[in-house]
Amino acid sequence: MAKELEFLTKRSEDYSKWYNELVVKADLAEQSDVRGCMVIKPYGYAIWEKMQRVLDDMFKETGVQNAYFPLLIPKSFLSREAEHVEGFAKECAVVTHYRLKTNETHDGVVVDPAAKLEEELIIRPTSETIIWNTFKNWIHSYRDLPLLVNQWCNVMRWEMRTRLFLRTAEFLWQEGHTAHATREEAEARARQMLEVYATFAEKYMAVPVMKGVKSETERFAGALDTYTIEAMMQDGKALQSGTSHFLGQNFGKAFDVQFLNKENKAEYAWATSWGVSTRLMGALIMTHSDDNGLVLPPALAPLQVVIIPIGKPAQMPELDAKAGEIMSALKALGVSVKYDNSDNKRAGFKFADYELKGVPVRLVLGARDLEQGIIEVMRRDTLEKENAPLEGIAQYVKNLLDDIQQNIFRKAKEARDARIYECDDYEEFKQRVQDGGFFLCHWDGTAETEARIKEETQATIRCVPFDVEQTPGVDMVSGKPAVARVLIARSY
Amino acid sequence: MAKELEFLTKRSEDYSKWYNELVVKADLAEQSDVRGCMVIKPYGYAIWEKMQRVLDDMFKETGVQNAYFPLLIPKSFLSREAEHVEGFAKECAVVTHYRLKTNETHDGVVVDPAAKLEEELIIRPTSETIIWNTFKNWIHSYRDLPLLVNQWCNVMRWEMRTRLFLRTAEFLWQEGHTAHATREEAEARARQMLEVYATFAEKYMAVPVMKGVKSETERFAGALDTYTIEAMMQDGKALQSGTSHFLGQNFGKAFDVQFLNKENKAEYAWATSWGVSTRLMGALIMTHSDDNGLVLPPALAPLQVVIIPIGKPAQMPELDAKAGEIMSALKALGVSVKYDNSDNKRAGFKFADYELKGVPVRLVLGARDLEQGIIEVMRRDTLEKENAPLEGIAQYVKNLLDDIQQNIFRKAKEARDARIYECDDYEEFKQRVQDGGFFLCHWDGTAETEARIKEETQATIRCVPFDVEQTPGVDMVSGKPAVARVLIARSY
Repeated sequence: MAKELEFLTKRSEDYSKWYNELVVKADLAEQSDVRGCMVIKPYGYAIWEKMQRVLDDMFKETGVQNAYFPLLIPKSFLSREAEHVEGFAKECAVVTHYRLKTNETHDGVVVDPAAKLEEELIIRPTSETIIWNTFKNWIHSYRDLPLLVNQWCNVMRWEMRTRLFLRTAEFLWQEGHTAHATREEAEARARQMLEVYATFAEKYMAVPVMKGVKSETERFAGALDTYTIEAMMQDGKALQSGTSHFLGQNFGKAFDVQFLNKENKAEYAWATSWGVSTRLMGALIMTHSDDNGLVLPPALAPLQVVIIPIGKPAQMPELDAKAGEIMSALKALGVSVKYDNSDNKRAGFKFADYELKGVPVRLVLGARDLEQGIIEVMRRDTLEKENAPLEGIAQYVKNLLDDIQQNIFRKAKEARDARIYECDDYEEFKQRVQDGGFFLCHWDGTAETEARIKEETQATIRCVPFDVEQTPGVDMVSGKPAVARVLIARSY
Repeated sequence: MAKELEFLTKRSEDYSKWYNELVVKADLAEQSDVRGCMVIKPYGYAIWEKMQRVLDDMFKETGVQNAYFPLLIPKSFLSREAEHVEGFAKECAVVTHYRLKTNETHDGVVVDPAAKLEEELIIRPTSETIIWNTFKNWIHSYRDLPLLVNQWCNVMRWEMRTRLFLRTAEFLWQEGHTAHATREEAEARARQMLEVYATFAEKYMAVPVMKGVKSETERFAGALDTYTIEAMMQDGKALQSGTSHFLGQNFGKAFDVQFLNKENKAEYAWATSWGVSTRLMGALIMTHSDDNGLVLPPALAPLQVVIIPIGKPAQMPELDAKAGEIMSALKALGVSVKYDNSDNKRAGFKFADYELKGVPVRLVLGARDLEQGIIEVMRRDTLEKENAPLEGIAQYVKNLLDDIQQNIFRKAKEARDARIYECDDYEEFKQRVQDGGFFLCHWDGTAETEARIKEETQATIRCVPFDVEQTPGVDMVSGKPAVARVLIARSY
């Protein structure tokens, strides 16, 4: 391991500190001078852009169209859907004025008290209210349905304790909002989008997830059902990575969105909403990375391959030429590649830096190797090095990238599966849950038991998982009958 | 012309009303219930997405990377660059509180007076201040330069009179911010990005633009030079469509962004910023569209071709099959196409609707035509119809799309060029400028003359144009010597 990387705290020493350092040192994001708001740096944003592109295509595949709705929401809108406002955190940024003026000493600006808004405006924490207020004008007949809309935007929730990507006051996300003529269709759409999220997480992020439905307590404010994907981080904690809500007719009624059905009768529209955010960046980073830095799945890595030459000045022209050939061949296969022949950094520094950045494959092109027709190939996921023939190297690297993509998913899944426990004894649970892991436990379905677990262990019911074979049993806390096991874990 | 379209006001009757109606009726955007904030509807957003994709690729070609900076800016930041705060409009949305609470009657929410911010936060009207405050941490040595960053985001300026796309309180844009080691490099970058904008406008939007530099009065607050592209709308008014600013060291000094140069001496970094916004949508719509609705350049049309079958029910299977063949062939050529065989709308309604939406090419597949091996082709730009052989129709349509792209640019350029006048007499100017057009007039370079023209005619100096052969002359207003002609016009 290169000397330069000793600055990164080891995961085993302090997992939380390791994460915080890694995000900053790998140039992904940093805190801004605005409380709780982050700056997403170019390298971090490049990963987010790749995520966006893939997700956006997946959404459009299902018939969703993008649109854009206002950033600001009239305060009164929030009160329209009673559960929504009761359940939703009221930590919001509130706009009260619309003008500044120069101060008396002419060296700064002050808020102009004359420019007070009649009704305060809230920076959107989520957009159900403003969007359903708009849908009212778009939906008249069953022919206007389904209406499948998504927006990519920024939202704001005034979080007190923030962590880069995981919990920030402002974050970027997509929020899908759909309207349907029937309950069945809306429920199916909510489930469909959960599947999209799960597929994206596993296939592109290489992050295994458990799909399930939230308990009533953990539901989105205003939802009849909240579906979730839960990922396990390396410390055994759960990270809720995406949610999809079946909203029933709550927003249809609150905003009077009625349509004439085929029988020409007025009905309220059925709703879903679903979102993933820059929080996914946190899941991506924490699932795969190691003490040397980031490990990125090739499908989302901004740069997939780096080529570094090692040779004396006189040998460089030959190395440059060979590197050019390899790059052309890789690009022709759709692989992104960079040739780093900068002479102001030592090779060791470059090695460490690209490891820190998680570039999946490193090729070291040595003058002596070139003579022998070979090249050194290092894969970031295992840090294994080998010599490969220069002949056909592009295809070899492309196959290796596929292999890395699969390998890091397999590795993450094995690590997770090894930490999924069935547990039937509450005392045992209380002890073991502190070390992390997903616990499958029978639950009697009451909010009381749920609250007690949370209070005594800080662990929460993440979901009733879909893909677990269920048998009835006895609630480990209350001893009452339970129809199914739920997933319990400490979480981010 | 189909009967359904009589609702659209004619341009000759009321150009402004025509525009407002068109934006709404073509499903591009609408006013929201939040003052001055628009909803961009899916069809309008699809055009904006295409613009974004092309521009983003063009930016990246020049080495620019995307990033994301906070939505909120501490009020004190705005005062850091003196000219910036003096010159910049102070109509901004001000966040003063960060929490709501349930009201006493438990039927609504009120702002929690206990949650008042120590320092108010402003929703970004533009991000020079917050970005340069961040650059301070990113720039230490000449090796960190140039720094070429862009963000796609929403911004807000509390405009009193708003019009969809042209002037809205919230709008979407990109803002590029670059830092350089030398004045020359920064100036060259500002000019380079203006060229990118001009190329985009002409090649993709098919909107001819005049490039030039703004007068001191019209410069961006804090800039040493503001470059602009100015387009002419069909009413002869100018629409400023993109600007690129050379900011000197103003922000470098205001935010103390210094770097060590090659001689190891500290210097302030040189800056540029440049942006285009959803205002481009207004330019696109107003330049090409006609009394039947939108005319879109094929390069940015969400849907390039629509196929409509006409036949008796018994003939439909054969028509469907043929349409399928044509669609496959078009898609293979990269052309987007939709087959509209919905049976709940008359063909005439469909024709009118796709004309309103500006779909560049309409194919009408008739049962009788099919027998004869021909198909009716209608091009939206000229509304001309012709019969073309079904054999090779895909390639024919692809070529036609290229032709339309070129034709609408040529048409717009001819219309514009016919309304560019050299004028040396102020009385004549005052009269003629009311009818629209670009006037090239000698200007003595003083703010007094500029102000007088504006006051007396409402026309403004749009720029000192680059691509006009300049000869010295006499200012038409003051009679003083003038080194060059400037572009004067009434504007949006």
